[in-house]
Amino acid sequence: MNASPLGKDQSSPPPLECVFHPGSIAVVGLSANVAGAWLNDCYIAPMLKMGYQGHIYVVNPKGGQIAGLPAYPSLQDVPGSVDYVISCIPAQQTPQLLEECLSKGVKTVQFYTAGFAETGEQEGIDLQRRLVETARRGGMRLVGPNCMGIYCPSSGLGFSLDFPPETGPIGLLCQSGGNTGYIVRSAAARGLRFSKAVSYGNACDINECDLLDYLADDPDTKVIAAYIEGTTDGRRLMASLARAASTKPVVVFKGGYTEGGGRATASHTGSLAGSDAVWSGFLRQVGAIRVYSVEEMTDMLVALLCMKPPRGTKCCAVGAGGGPSVLATDECEQAGLQLPAIPPEIRERLKGLIPVAGSMLSNPIDVFPMVGMLQKRMVGQRDASSWEDLIPKLQVAPGDQGWGDLMVILEDWPELGLVIFHHAFDGPPVPVSDWLINALRPMIAAASLCKLPEAIVLHSVVNNNSWQVLLKAQQICQEAGQPVFLSMRGAALAIRRLIEFEGAHPGKVARLQKSVG
Amino acid sequence: MNASPLGKDQSSPPPLECVFHPGSIAVVGLSANVAGAWLNDCYIAPMLKMGYQGHIYVVNPKGGQIAGLPAYPSLQDVPGSVDYVISCIPAQQTPQLLEECLSKGVKTVQFYTAGFAETGEQEGIDLQRRLVETARRGGMRLVGPNCMGIYCPSSGLGFSLDFPPETGPIGLLCQSGGNTGYIVRSAAARGLRFSKAVSYGNACDINECDLLDYLADDPDTKVIAAYIEGTTDGRRLMASLARAASTKPVVVFKGGYTEGGGRATASHTGSLAGSDAVWSGFLRQVGAIRVYSVEEMTDMLVALLCMKPPRGTKCCAVGAGGGPSVLATDECEQAGLQLPAIPPEIRERLKGLIPVAGSMLSNPIDVFPMVGMLQKRMVGQRDASSWEDLIPKLQVAPGDQGWGDLMVILEDWPELGLVIFHHAFDGPPVPVSDWLINALRPMIAAASLCKLPEAIVLHSVVNNNSWQVLLKAQQICQEAGQPVFLSMRGAALAIRRLIEFEGAHPGKVARLQKSVG
Repeated sequence: MNASPLGKDQSSPPPLECVFHPGSIAVVGLSANVAGAWLNDCYIAPMLKMGYQGHIYVVNPKGGQIAGLPAYPSLQDVPGSVDYVISCIPAQQTPQLLEECLSKGVKTVQFYTAGFAETGEQEGIDLQRRLVETARRGGMRLVGPNCMGIYCPSSGLGFSLDFPPETGPIGLLCQSGGNTGYIVRSAAARGLRFSKAVSYGNACDINECDLLDYLADDPDTKVIAAYIEGTTDGRRLMASLARAASTKPVVVFKGGYTEGGGRATASHTGSLAGSDAVWSGFLRQVGAIRVYSVEEMTDMLVALLCMKPPRGTKCCAVGAGGGPSVLATDECEQAGLQLPAIPPEIRERLKGLIPVAGSMLSNPIDVFPMVGMLQKRMVGQRDASSWEDLIPKLQVAPGDQGWGDLMVILEDWPELGLVIFHHAFDGPPVPVSDWLINALRPMIAAASLCKLPEAIVLHSVVNNNSWQVLLKAQQICQEAGQPVFLSMRGAALAIRRLIEFEGAHPGKVARLQKSVG
Repeated sequence: MNASPLGKDQSSPPPLECVFHPGSIAVVGLSANVAGAWLNDCYIAPMLKMGYQGHIYVVNPKGGQIAGLPAYPSLQDVPGSVDYVISCIPAQQTPQLLEECLSKGVKTVQFYTAGFAETGEQEGIDLQRRLVETARRGGMRLVGPNCMGIYCPSSGLGFSLDFPPETGPIGLLCQSGGNTGYIVRSAAARGLRFSKAVSYGNACDINECDLLDYLADDPDTKVIAAYIEGTTDGRRLMASLARAASTKPVVVFKGGYTEGGGRATASHTGSLAGSDAVWSGFLRQVGAIRVYSVEEMTDMLVALLCMKPPRGTKCCAVGAGGGPSVLATDECEQAGLQLPAIPPEIRERLKGLIPVAGSMLSNPIDVFPMVGMLQKRMVGQRDASSWEDLIPKLQVAPGDQGWGDLMVILEDWPELGLVIFHHAFDGPPVPVSDWLINALRPMIAAASLCKLPEAIVLHSVVNNNSWQVLLKAQQICQEAGQPVFLSMRGAALAIRRLIEFEGAHPGKVARLQKSVG
């Protein structure tokens, strides 16, 4: 057995550092055949692109060139040492491969290969058991089988060409390869980055507990996200989750929470999904934040990493448009926030600022009339050749009789916990194009000025033009340090969970955000 | 009072045909001022673009040119007769305008103007009452106030430049202008079109009951969609809804279904939202289909207009990727569909077709291994210079040992009510680009071949590339006559409601689809 650099006792398996920082990699079973060539793009091209510094070897009995690299007929033929092997060969051939790995001194073997316990067939179950026995004998660690493996930007590991090369604070463990891709891309699209992401499949050796323990100690990981389909050791999982959650926020998406979903996890990763009620109690008890979709997980990560925790669930929604404001209110309240009526004294002050016609001076506030009035006032003051010219010139500051004063007044509303700024892209009668970017700038400036916790929701996007503008607007919000959400429901759910988390763990979110900088 | 062409008794207000087919229109209160010029784009440009055949006049006391048309100082100065007036002037000036309309013999006045009962202020409430009294006196009909008005492609009326000029089977009544825009655009993006859409605001004269009655009788309207914030006459609304629903499917989105949402509707359109439980019972009793968001409404319209009603809620989900399949299952079951385990005899037949490794041969079915096997088989048979070349050559038909045979086998599963084909765009390790279009073609062909009711769900889209491919793929599905949804949750909710509707009204959906052609 390998010596344990962390000084753990000899009977425990080697720690995971070697898994994330291998000095050399061999990919076994890639194909020159066009039908199999897409795997080359998963396991060779991303590492080259991300600047993996070690040796990459390709193994194929037919030799030749694969993905631009010379193919060695077997692992034994590889000239240097190999720390990490990626298996893309059929399941039946994996026991032989693992014996070769043992001889070669390989430290970690990751199996893209499927066809093991998840099939529910005895042959696959037995094969998987043999893999584990062989690995334990030689002190090797196994990732998978039936998984995509490791994404670790700092060491140049990855399995898709479009994963960001930059590192970040999120450590992800994910029992599904496809969901790893979706979570990484969803979060990346929202400006978030990862320290590590592990697609760990059937978890025959390295499992959710090992990964939680590792990420809890990993200095590069500040918040942990987990997609878990099941466990074989509920007691250890509870301990690992509790330990992880005591150090870092942990967001858990339990896949297979319905009856059919539970059956699906069994055939996907051979996981016993377990009763949803048990999982609920379990996750609550350890202090993990539970979410129910990738979208909810991404929103939760945005809230944790970018949003000041609100003082309570009472919020004021501020945006343009009456109908969208009604919908925003329903979605907020449905998710557990409240939009209380504006107190009379605050309403009176707002009436000095915002025309009462069309502004719904209750809560939500429809700011469209205020924006119109500001523009009209400016037309009298300055040259403006077009409407689009006017809005960026609105200076947002206290005393501006506009957005700035709106913030000042709302800050005097004692019970208010937060302000949600929102814009419905495809609602208004004017088709969306780049003019909207300028129209949104004063709102973003107001959000930055706001002393209350705040969030920006850019929503109701169906047209391609709007989508393009959304991407730009989101970028501007992110550069202004604003938390951005893409639906009112998603925002409200994440914010409510953030408030609950802050209530249970005061100060933890602030410490997280400070550690990320 | 005008004679009623439908022969109703003299005391009832004139019917609505004149509202949708005015011979001439005057827009009062447009501005040459840049800050107000966007309204010109709402009320002049769309009518010109949509080919409105009558005269369009612009009225402004300052005269001059507005939106390229000569402005008349007052309504009396307009040379010809005016059927329809759009008011964009401040609320305080509307009583005077209405008197002028009376003198001019105007039939309908639509008020973009806000500042009436929705303000909750006595002045606005009184102003609104005066408008109604004046209109009743002269036999005029009022749309609004505080609304965007009419979109009617067949007569060239509309209020946004990007509303489709083509007509279609959906008749929409919508108490919010912004939500009208969002519903029209959401449905349009999914290939659906409208006979009429009415943003009716405060409903001081023409209200939800009038519009339901009209759309129930309108031969151009085959399905009715309604966004309603409140009513002042619950008994009549119940009768109107029941009558409408007895002739056509009626989909209702009740805005303001939470406590805060109810307050928001009051300040938005002066509506009494009413208890949500009362509305629930009410809508169930009249046989309307209730939805809770614009997205759900759009999905429901897609289901009603494009999908064969399933025989029951038991479905099989077929798509690529294990994790996305687990998520698909949870979302389906959460929404009230079931994914039963595949019966052993069907599973045995599938094993002859699909490799057991990685295919989750339970339900959902992960077709990725099958697709891979088909490709490998083809590589042996034909020339293929790239992977992308291969897939479109897959001929989908019974006997193909692929998608075609999969359909044949699933059709023999007696309890199966439908098949949901799905694809997670941003899950797989290969970044999405146009190759995916070709990869999806066999799935779309299988859906077309499938004798069971089916739907296609294109989901998990976060990247811009994926969004562009989604738009193309959606188009191809629509051209193949397939119902397309953009989330599993949305699809499953709409399908479950479609099944319930079909159960309560057997044959109605088939008749609707036949009438639309």
